[in-house]
Amino acid sequence: MTSSNKYSYKKLQDFCSTVFVKAGVMKEQADIVAASLVQADLRGVDSHGVVRTAIYLKRVEQKMINPAADIHIEKENESTALIDGGNHFGAVVGDKALKLAMEKAKTTGVGMVGVKNSNHFGTGAYYALEALKQDLGTIIMSNASQTMPPTGGVRPFIGTNPLAVGIPCGAYQPFLLDMATSVVARGKIIVAAQKGESIPQGWAIDKNGKPTTNAEEALEGSVLPLGGTKGYGISMFIDILSGVLTGAGFGKYVHNMYEDWEKPQNVGHFFITFDINKFIDIQEFKNRMDLYISDVKGEPRGEDVDEILIPGEIESRISEQRKKNGIILPLKVENELTEIGLKYGLSLKDALMKKVCKESEGV
Amino acid sequence: MTSSNKYSYKKLQDFCSTVFVKAGVMKEQADIVAASLVQADLRGVDSHGVVRTAIYLKRVEQKMINPAADIHIEKENESTALIDGGNHFGAVVGDKALKLAMEKAKTTGVGMVGVKNSNHFGTGAYYALEALKQDLGTIIMSNASQTMPPTGGVRPFIGTNPLAVGIPCGAYQPFLLDMATSVVARGKIIVAAQKGESIPQGWAIDKNGKPTTNAEEALEGSVLPLGGTKGYGISMFIDILSGVLTGAGFGKYVHNMYEDWEKPQNVGHFFITFDINKFIDIQEFKNRMDLYISDVKGEPRGEDVDEILIPGEIESRISEQRKKNGIILPLKVENELTEIGLKYGLSLKDALMKKVCKESEGV
Repeated sequence: MTSSNKYSYKKLQDFCSTVFVKAGVMKEQADIVAASLVQADLRGVDSHGVVRTAIYLKRVEQKMINPAADIHIEKENESTALIDGGNHFGAVVGDKALKLAMEKAKTTGVGMVGVKNSNHFGTGAYYALEALKQDLGTIIMSNASQTMPPTGGVRPFIGTNPLAVGIPCGAYQPFLLDMATSVVARGKIIVAAQKGESIPQGWAIDKNGKPTTNAEEALEGSVLPLGGTKGYGISMFIDILSGVLTGAGFGKYVHNMYEDWEKPQNVGHFFITFDINKFIDIQEFKNRMDLYISDVKGEPRGEDVDEILIPGEIESRISEQRKKNGIILPLKVENELTEIGLKYGLSLKDALMKKVCKESEGV
Repeated sequence: MTSSNKYSYKKLQDFCSTVFVKAGVMKEQADIVAASLVQADLRGVDSHGVVRTAIYLKRVEQKMINPAADIHIEKENESTALIDGGNHFGAVVGDKALKLAMEKAKTTGVGMVGVKNSNHFGTGAYYALEALKQDLGTIIMSNASQTMPPTGGVRPFIGTNPLAVGIPCGAYQPFLLDMATSVVARGKIIVAAQKGESIPQGWAIDKNGKPTTNAEEALEGSVLPLGGTKGYGISMFIDILSGVLTGAGFGKYVHNMYEDWEKPQNVGHFFITFDINKFIDIQEFKNRMDLYISDVKGEPRGEDVDEILIPGEIESRISEQRKKNGIILPLKVENELTEIGLKYGLSLKDALMKKVCKESEGV
């Protein structure tokens, strides 16, 4: 159930940032975390939006995130670096890693930066969009705690390790792929379970490793990798680059943000940034991207298909709408944020969109 | 139907190489093309093996591949390069691009090399295995001619653009993912059609864009990307890096190897190579990979599952077997190669494994 209130994304971001500052985070860093969350809400990726404020705060309070940590470069070369996040917020560590990768890309053509000792870093799209502001291409990965079985396995072993790719276009919105490596978001199974609906075959297995269409059983079991063995392989390779290569956790050594209160998550990320100009003139590239997209959009469509879409296009449209019309939150999230506000002496109501009142005729 | 003859992979490679030399290819380059094909047969990826000899030769004869081309670096930076393949064999161009990427990785940590004006380059695994000999990690991509529709489309627009990832391990075989971005290889649908069997829902659409389980209808339609919209996005991003960024063809501008005799293919490839030592000591990395793999192999398994496998593991085992016991070819391929041999004054029989005869007792 959603609230009927509409929140200004800018004010919501200020609200979250102020909360994080009051919880002990430096202003500049609190801004990054808040921007990363609110941007997800703007783009319609509500699962990664301000809904995470409460858990982030709880992990700070329980000393599972260290907002005073020193994020430092442990190893560096012309085009590579390894960053130790010191268990800071994922978004803050990620932002630093991205900036370093971008700097390197501008010099040598490529920046490849691995990160260890980090936390949930929000959406990959957040970083891809930052790099797109400077016309840089990116491939961004992160590992995550266990949710999917290996092919042949019966219980969670790898995370739904996300992959994001950002590529600038000319007249069109950027190509922005940001996907988990599971068939479907676990959230969709939760919704089906709440509604008492069944789920399609192939989404999940039950706790005994058997295929199930029962949403309740699926939640006790595991969500499956996309495309079977192929998704298992993709998810593993993301885990290898983000975790095994960086010194972060991998497989069972990445700890669950919601369930593990003994150990930091030790999430790992991997940022690849490249300078398009080092391959081809950026303007020519953008023209070629526009041709590619106009070609694909011009393809004959199936019945009931209004338009062929490009990765990131829906999210970009939702973002424009929500910037203008405001963000609507689930009641549960609104209540949580209201309580958090109360605790820190802030009113969530201050983040509402201003009502535009027209003068009535004759009054 | 397969022949009962067993071929020595080394002799089969010599046979193919000699054929290419006689068709006008330089010895060193013919060796690369032959090695790439035979390695695919060794690893059980027969679709990319010596079955391609005939079409490669035909394209040389029809001047659709230029074996005398100058492959040159068009643009270069510390960590990047753009190579113009001059329409040489894909494997020869790919080999040059890989070597350049490896050289750069050893210096700056990363090599990222794009390729245009190339042809079918065999399997991505071939290049990944070359880099693995030097303990380098790789991400390798290529685009291909149109076989899959975009989400919402009804006819082929993008290729089943392959992605390969190679990562060294210690005690275990390397992690070697090499996959097309389709749900399933088109070859499996061909086999089902030949047997008059139906195919599972979700593999393909018919020529009107409707889901079909009829293999014949599927062959007139399109094979689908893995994981629906996600596979469509992955395949597009491979097309963007391999084609749009490099100046090669992309989408409909990559020409079909079997059907287009007017224009060269203009395939594009993209090689990313990285030096693990620049992030973490290679021995420590290998130990971590071994732990990762032993963890996943130790997971509880589903009923009827003997073993949890790692990407590339089956292929590596088949390769060991075929090196020892020989390669068996489909009758059609054996006949084709025999004819090719006759044309160039070579006998395919010279590539058979030697029969090991034991002395009979008392004789």
